[in-house]
Amino acid sequence: MAYTLAEIADYLGAELKGDASLVVSGLATLATAKSGQLSFLANMSYKDQLLSTQASAVIVHPNQADDCQCAAIIASNPYLAYANVSQLFDTLPKAFGGIHPSAQISPTAKVDQSATIAANVVIEDHAVVAQHAVIGSGSVIGQNSRVGAGTRVHQNVSIYHDVTIGESCIIHSGTVIGSDGFGFANEAGKWVKICQIGGVVIGNQVEIGANCTIDRGALSDTQIGDGVKLDNQIQIAHNVEIGAHTAMAAGCLIAGSTKIGSACTLAGGVGVTGHLELCDGTHVTAMSLVTKSITKPGSYSSGTAMSPTAEWRKSAARLRQIDDLAKRIKNLEKSIKE
Amino acid sequence: MAYTLAEIADYLGAELKGDASLVVSGLATLATAKSGQLSFLANMSYKDQLLSTQASAVIVHPNQADDCQCAAIIASNPYLAYANVSQLFDTLPKAFGGIHPSAQISPTAKVDQSATIAANVVIEDHAVVAQHAVIGSGSVIGQNSRVGAGTRVHQNVSIYHDVTIGESCIIHSGTVIGSDGFGFANEAGKWVKICQIGGVVIGNQVEIGANCTIDRGALSDTQIGDGVKLDNQIQIAHNVEIGAHTAMAAGCLIAGSTKIGSACTLAGGVGVTGHLELCDGTHVTAMSLVTKSITKPGSYSSGTAMSPTAEWRKSAARLRQIDDLAKRIKNLEKSIKE
Amino acid sequence: MAYTLAEIADYLGAELKGDASLVVSGLATLATAKSGQLSFLANMSYKDQLLSTQASAVIVHPNQADDCQCAAIIASNPYLAYANVSQLFDTLPKAFGGIHPSAQISPTAKVDQSATIAANVVIEDHAVVAQHAVIGSGSVIGQNSRVGAGTRVHQNVSIYHDVTIGESCIIHSGTVIGSDGFGFANEAGKWVKICQIGGVVIGNQVEIGANCTIDRGALSDTQIGDGVKLDNQIQIAHNVEIGAHTAMAAGCLIAGSTKIGSACTLAGGVGVTGHLELCDGTHVTAMSLVTKSITKPGSYSSGTAMSPTAEWRKSAARLRQIDDLAKRIKNLEKSIKE
Repeated sequence: MAYTLAEIADYLGAELKGDASLVVSGLATLATAKSGQLSFLANMSYKDQLLSTQASAVIVHPNQADDCQCAAIIASNPYLAYANVSQLFDTLPKAFGGIHPSAQISPTAKVDQSATIAANVVIEDHAVVAQHAVIGSGSVIGQNSRVGAGTRVHQNVSIYHDVTIGESCIIHSGTVIGSDGFGFANEAGKWVKICQIGGVVIGNQVEIGANCTIDRGALSDTQIGDGVKLDNQIQIAHNVEIGAHTAMAAGCLIAGSTKIGSACTLAGGVGVTGHLELCDGTHVTAMSLVTKSITKPGSYSSGTAMSPTAEWRKSAARLRQIDDLAKRIKNLEKSIKE
Repeated sequence: MAYTLAEIADYLGAELKGDASLVVSGLATLATAKSGQLSFLANMSYKDQLLSTQASAVIVHPNQADDCQCAAIIASNPYLAYANVSQLFDTLPKAFGGIHPSAQISPTAKVDQSATIAANVVIEDHAVVAQHAVIGSGSVIGQNSRVGAGTRVHQNVSIYHDVTIGESCIIHSGTVIGSDGFGFANEAGKWVKICQIGGVVIGNQVEIGANCTIDRGALSDTQIGDGVKLDNQIQIAHNVEIGAHTAMAAGCLIAGSTKIGSACTLAGGVGVTGHLELCDGTHVTAMSLVTKSITKPGSYSSGTAMSPTAEWRKSAARLRQIDDLAKRIKNLEKSIKE
Repeated sequence: MAYTLAEIADYLGAELKGDASLVVSGLATLATAKSGQLSFLANMSYKDQLLSTQASAVIVHPNQADDCQCAAIIASNPYLAYANVSQLFDTLPKAFGGIHPSAQISPTAKVDQSATIAANVVIEDHAVVAQHAVIGSGSVIGQNSRVGAGTRVHQNVSIYHDVTIGESCIIHSGTVIGSDGFGFANEAGKWVKICQIGGVVIGNQVEIGANCTIDRGALSDTQIGDGVKLDNQIQIAHNVEIGAHTAMAAGCLIAGSTKIGSACTLAGGVGVTGHLELCDGTHVTAMSLVTKSITKPGSYSSGTAMSPTAEWRKSAARLRQIDDLAKRIKNLEKSIKE
C-alpha cells in the first residue's frame, strides 16, 4: 500500500503543499512516524510535534500549514481527513469471494454469488446473505435471518433465527445476536420461561464490537438504528430501541424495553435500567447508572471520585451517616436562630 | 401456529368468555396487537388499553373479565398464563434429530440416538449427550462432560472437560463453562499458576444467557443450583455456589468461593466480592457492589443517584470532604453547647 | 495420577516428615480432603483444621510441622508449594499432537509438526503456529498472526490478522484478540470509521481468561507485557499498554491508549478511562473508576458502601444536597464566630 501525495490529496479533495510525487506507504502518529509515512495533527496539544516529526507529510488544518516542516495536506477537519485516509491503508484481509468448501449451507438458504462464506460457516434454512456480504470463519447465520449487502460478519459470530442485519454493517467476533431476552414469570418460587418470539432488526452502517449480546424481543423486535456504533462487550436487552448514530463505549448494559434516542453517547460501563426513555442528544459519563428517563439533552453522571483507599474508606463510612449529618445541621441552624 | 381459543383455554386450564372457535395466530402487547392475535393484561397501568386494543382475545384476571371488549381468557395470574401460552407460539427452530455429517464426535463419546448434533459440533472423548438434548452449530463439548436430557446448547458454546449440565437446561451462544478459575501464587513478583482441577456442576432447569463465563473449581466444583436463571455476560468465578431459583440480570460479576442463597435476585451489573455468603432471599439493586456477607433477607444497594454532570462534579468533590464536614459539625455542636 | 510423598517432596525440593512411600492421588482443602489426598495450610485462619483434616498429608510452613496429625511436607511458602504441586494433578486433557482432519489450514500457514490443531480449527494465510502450541476446537488464527511455542489456545477463540502471541501463554475460550478499536470521526452527526491498522503484541507467560476482548491498535500496536494475567470478560481497548506481571480480575474495562504499569492489580469490574498512566504497583479495589493518572504506588478506590436499600435511598438523596450542606456549615461557622 503506497500512494503519492497527489493521489491522497485527490482522494481527500484537499489542497497539497509540497512534492506531489512523494510516496507514502503508511500512517502513523506525529511522534512515531518515520520517513515515508503520513501523519496528521488533529489535537492542538500535539502542535509542537510538527517541528520534530519524521513524517514525510502531515494532514493539517489551514492554520498550521505554514508550521509544517514537511509536505502538508490541508484539510478543514484533519481528524476526519485522517479517518478517510485510513481506509487507504486498511490491513483487513480482503474477502476472497465465493464459498469455502467446508461451509455448511442449507439448500434453502440464499447466498448471493458475490458474497464470501469462509471456512466452517453454517448458514441455516431460509437465511439470506446479500451481495458482497462476508461471513467470517466459524460464524452461524440462523434460520430466516438476513445479512444485508456489503455487511461483514467476523469470525465465530452467532446469529439466531429471525434476525435482520442491514447493509454495510460490521459485526465483530464472538458477538451474539438474537439470543433470548431474560423473561420469566414466577410461579410459587420457580421461574417459568416466557418464550421470546420477537426478532432483532439492525439498520444500515451499524458497527457492533466483539463479544456483544443483543437479545431478541419478547413479542416485538429489538431495534438498532442506522449508523449506531457499539464497542465491545455491550449488552442490549429485549425490546430495546436505539436511535440513529448513537455510540456506546465498551461494557454498557441496557436493560429491557428502554428507548435510547439518536445522537447519544454512552461512555464505557454505563448501565441503563429498564423501561426508560433517553432523549436525543443524551450523554452519560463512564460507569454511571441511569435509573430515570432523561428528557433534556446534556451530560449526566453518577458515582464518586477516586481516592486513595484509606481516605475512601472514611468517606464511604461518613456517607452512610449523611442523613444524620444533615439533621444535625438543621438543629444547629435552629439553635443559632434561637 | 394457530389455535382456537378453546384450545388455548384448555391448555391453560382457564375459563373462556367469548367465541371458543375463534382462531388466534400470534401473541402481542395490547397496544400493538392486531385482529387475529392474543394479548394479555398483567400490569394494571395498561388497563385502559383493554378498551382500545385490536386483539381478538385477551388473557385477564377475573376482575377485568367484564372490561374486555373482545374474547377473554380468564386466569388468576395473567402474566404466568402469558408465560405458559408463549410456549405455543415459540419461533425457535425445532431440533432435526440426528447428527449432522460435519459434526466431529469422538468414538468414545456417548450420544443418545434421540439427540440432535448440529453442524460443526465437536464432542470430545468420553463426553455424554443424553436423550433429546440439542447441541447447536459450532459448539464444543469437552472431555468427560455431560449434557443432560432435554438440554439445549445453542451455537458456538464452549464447554471444557469435566462439566456436568443437568436436564432441561438452556445454554445460550458464546457462553463458556469450565474455563480455569483465576488462581495464582506470587513468587518474587511473578504469578505461578494454580491448576484448576475442580469441575462445574449445573442443576436442572437452569438457563444461562449468551457470552457468560462459568469457571471450573480450583479443587472442588463450582455449583449452580436447580432452576437458576442467568442473563447474558455474567461471570461466575471458581467455587461459587448459587442456590436454587436465584436469578441474575446481565453483567453480574461473582467473585471466587462466594455462596449465594436460593430465591435471590441480583439486578444488572451487580458485583459480589469473594468468600462471602448471601442468605436466601437477598435482593441487590443494579450496579451495586456487595463487599460483606448478607445474613438478613431484603434489598441492598450501593452507588449514587444520577445528576447532570455539572452538579455531579460538585457533589463528588464535596463527598471527598465529608469527613471534614462531619468534624466541623461536631465542633459547631460543641461551640453551641458551650 | 498418584504420587508417593517422596516424589512430591522431591518435586518441590521440600522436607518430608512422615511415611515417604505413602501414595496420594488427589488435592483437596483441609476441610474436604479424604484419606489418600494431599492438602495444604496457607491461611492461618484454617490452622485448627490441621487437627480434624482427613488428608493423608499436608503442605505446611515449618512453624506448623509439629501440629500435623498426618504426614507433613514442609515448605517456607505453602501456597506457592500448593501452586506448584497442582501442576501434578492437572486434569486438562493432554494435547494429542498433530492436525485433526477437519481443520482448515491455509497452504501458506506454517504449523510446526509438534503442534496440536484440534477439530474445526481455521488457520489463515501466512499464520504461524510454533512448537508444541495447541489450538483448541473451533478457534480461528487470522492472517499473518503468530502463536508462540507452548502456547495453548482453547476452544472457539477468535484471533484476527497481525496478532502476535508469545510463548507459554494460555488463551481461554471465547476470547477475541485483534478486533477493531473503537475509533470514529464525526462528520455532520454521522460516524466515519477510522480503520484500525495496528496489531496486538502479547508477551510470554500471559494468561487471558474466557470471553475477553483485546482490540488492535489504531496506528501502532496494543501491547500486553510478559506474565500478565487477565481474568474473564476483560476489555482492553486499542493502544493500551499493560506492564509485566500485572493482574486484573474479571470484568475490567480499560479504555483506549491508557498505560498500566507493571506489578499492578485491578480487582473485578474496575474501569480506567482513556489516555491515562497508572504507575507500577498501582492497586485498585473492585468496581472503582479511575479517571486520573496515578503517579504514586498504592491502593485506590471509588464508589460507596452497600446499605439496605431504604437507607441507601436516603443517603443518595442527601448526597445530592451535599454542596448545600457544606455551605450551610460554613454559614454556621461564620455565625458562631460572630
